[in-house]
Amino acid sequence: IINKIAEKAKEAKKLGIDDPRRIIHSFKVGLAITLVSLFYYFKPLYEGFGVSAMWAVLTVVVVFEFSVGATLGKGLNRVCATLLGGLLGVGAHWLACYSGKNGEPVVIAVFVFIVAATVTFVRFFPKMKARYDYGLMVFILTFCLVSVSGYREDEVIRMAHERVVTIAIGSCTSLLVCILICPVWIGEDLHNHVADNLEKLGKFLEGFGGEYFKISNDGQSNTDKSFLQGYKSALNTKNSEENMANLARWEPGHGRLKFRHPWKLYLKAGTLTRDCAYKIEALSSHLNSDYPTPWPEEIQSKIQESYTMISSETGKALKELASAIKTMARSSSVNTHIANSKAAAETLKSLFKISVLEEDTDLLEIVPAATVASLLMDVVTCTEKIAACVNDLASQANFNSPNNNNNMIPGNSRLLHRGSVQPISGTEGPHHVITIGE
Amino acid sequence: IINKIAEKAKEAKKLGIDDPRRIIHSFKVGLAITLVSLFYYFKPLYEGFGVSAMWAVLTVVVVFEFSVGATLGKGLNRVCATLLGGLLGVGAHWLACYSGKNGEPVVIAVFVFIVAATVTFVRFFPKMKARYDYGLMVFILTFCLVSVSGYREDEVIRMAHERVVTIAIGSCTSLLVCILICPVWIGEDLHNHVADNLEKLGKFLEGFGGEYFKISNDGQSNTDKSFLQGYKSALNTKNSEENMANLARWEPGHGRLKFRHPWKLYLKAGTLTRDCAYKIEALSSHLNSDYPTPWPEEIQSKIQESYTMISSETGKALKELASAIKTMARSSSVNTHIANSKAAAETLKSLFKISVLEEDTDLLEIVPAATVASLLMDVVTCTEKIAACVNDLASQANFNSPNNNNNMIPGNSRLLHRGSVQPISGTEGPHHVITIGE
Repeated sequence: IINKIAEKAKEAKKLGIDDPRRIIHSFKVGLAITLVSLFYYFKPLYEGFGVSAMWAVLTVVVVFEFSVGATLGKGLNRVCATLLGGLLGVGAHWLACYSGKNGEPVVIAVFVFIVAATVTFVRFFPKMKARYDYGLMVFILTFCLVSVSGYREDEVIRMAHERVVTIAIGSCTSLLVCILICPVWIGEDLHNHVADNLEKLGKFLEGFGGEYFKISNDGQSNTDKSFLQGYKSALNTKNSEENMANLARWEPGHGRLKFRHPWKLYLKAGTLTRDCAYKIEALSSHLNSDYPTPWPEEIQSKIQESYTMISSETGKALKELASAIKTMARSSSVNTHIANSKAAAETLKSLFKISVLEEDTDLLEIVPAATVASLLMDVVTCTEKIAACVNDLASQANFNSPNNNNNMIPGNSRLLHRGSVQPISGTEGPHHVITIGE
Repeated sequence: IINKIAEKAKEAKKLGIDDPRRIIHSFKVGLAITLVSLFYYFKPLYEGFGVSAMWAVLTVVVVFEFSVGATLGKGLNRVCATLLGGLLGVGAHWLACYSGKNGEPVVIAVFVFIVAATVTFVRFFPKMKARYDYGLMVFILTFCLVSVSGYREDEVIRMAHERVVTIAIGSCTSLLVCILICPVWIGEDLHNHVADNLEKLGKFLEGFGGEYFKISNDGQSNTDKSFLQGYKSALNTKNSEENMANLARWEPGHGRLKFRHPWKLYLKAGTLTRDCAYKIEALSSHLNSDYPTPWPEEIQSKIQESYTMISSETGKALKELASAIKTMARSSSVNTHIANSKAAAETLKSLFKISVLEEDTDLLEIVPAATVASLLMDVVTCTEKIAACVNDLASQANFNSPNNNNNMIPGNSRLLHRGSVQPISGTEGPHHVITIGE
């Protein structure tokens, strides 16, 4: 048992070190709940609401989420849905009153059934589910509470009013604590997440040539092979990216990420990154097979050179793009790297065109080499597409031009710093930030 | 505006037709809420609980989910967490009473802060998040409600007791309605989802040969190309499968899916299916390029034959495996298909080994063909792995042996039927169920 506790403590420590914002978040939740329960302790405040003050505590527990976007989304959903549900509930109670003491419960039951069934069905609409799912649930809840209570309590309007006010108080407390104390912006997370994934692909490609031909460029790089696994985290990111983009839309502008920031382009960049990661997944399966050498020596070295050139130049281009997103400054050297990789791809094509194989060469021997060549060319195409997408992003989000990147505004470096606080995977090395315009 | 309403109505109709269980679910929610609000109308029931009866309505709205697994998970989480939170809340109130009227709010505030912050941090543990996230939230909620109310109300124990009982009533109502009226078992969904994805990959591979060599086997198959896109839905399934497996663990045994069914093997099969889908994604990018023919006529036709053989045999094997999962009966012909595809792969290797190219052949011309060959061989390996995994599943879940598949128990065909009610993507053709043991 002691072992198990020690293990859990270790896990907790790791969770805290991986992302210290988790510890801060826990304290923020404690603070917000303690603050809102003050309503119960101060007599004048308590007398205004009575037991209904409990709804404020309940709201804080339910609404307070890790990021500002999620808290704002839930809070707004909850307040608006309570308002609407309360109004309709009062209306339903008023209509039911006309049907006499015996008819009232029947009419209300019919209303409740219709509203609950309809709104539950509306929750299946993909667009509603993505943004208003919680609101629709709270709407059913408030409508049922208000209209059903109306049967026993006469002060339905007072009850609806108290519920709306206490829920608004709870939501506001959550929001204030969430935004004022070390806010976690999910938009910034998405921003860094997309850049990090690009950087991971870039690191893989930069190291691929050396790894494929078993060249150790220097002693130290040989020991750390984590860059070969990093791309895997980019394979299954679709759902989490879509979720982040949905939440980011709720966030107000902050730093350089404005309200109505083009989040859709991040999703597009994410999709292209995944396409590229699939190619890299295929490339990585060739890493541990022996490299075949059916070609004569001099052709062999040229082919080797082109492979290395393509992978390192596309890798550099992707890392440049990642750092361009992170610093929100256009990079001037991306196009050069892409042009280099395209030139190397052309060279490779011309090398394959010359019939230089010796007679009776085992054709199957060149299959792996040919596959790698074709995958590398696909990677060049992917990189071009990603570059075009980042370019769109740069113009829509007003990235700095490469000329005036020395007058970076303070918001920039803050953004960069925050990004490095939260590595998506725990195995990342130190950030290798490339100076823009190098 | 009228156009927009018509559009929404169309969308709603499509949602209902795609999966009629959605409509049934909406009615079930309406029914459960109406049932539980009866507590308010019948005087004897109302007098037992008073306004607390509202918690039962609230619980139904919050706990009632689409599938039995999700409802059970939330309901059990809610009841257990309320019980524990209520007990601890009463304990905290009792301790705080010793510190006098002035010290009481301070002591309670400290307790609330500590509990809220600690439990919020525990929610970050991945294992806790997957299964007990909702329970942890309800625990904070109940603890705060009970301990804070204790300051103004003296009957804390009565309040905690009422809360536990009403929440248990709400959860039981939800569960009964959820299970007794057309239950939706998420385990069955996962079961069919994994089989459907395998079938989609199988359909692609079966059709790949003909499509690649632009052969139209018969007139009708040429018009419907949807089988070429089906595999795409298998690429991004990791999160949804993990979620389904988590929920399925809550479900009691039903039909042939027992409690403690080996859900982990479904996740493993899903991972292998995705790996295979990545290869197919790479294959599909070769579909629209021209097929190069640098080989002499007779070799060409042999190569073409091997390609078609590999893809159609792996395709048949995958479809067999899919139908074996769906009907829960071992298939006897899977091994034959895999053996055929391996033999064809060997033939292909031997064809590539003979140096049959004419002098000055453009080597680049064979690159696409070589890539496709290598991908097809990868697919053979993937298929073998998937077959091994399904075999594990067959022994752990006691699939029928191929001999006695004619005495299929009724549960079987019911399972098959339910599966076809809910196509994961809307574009699926009619199910092509292969008779086991053919």
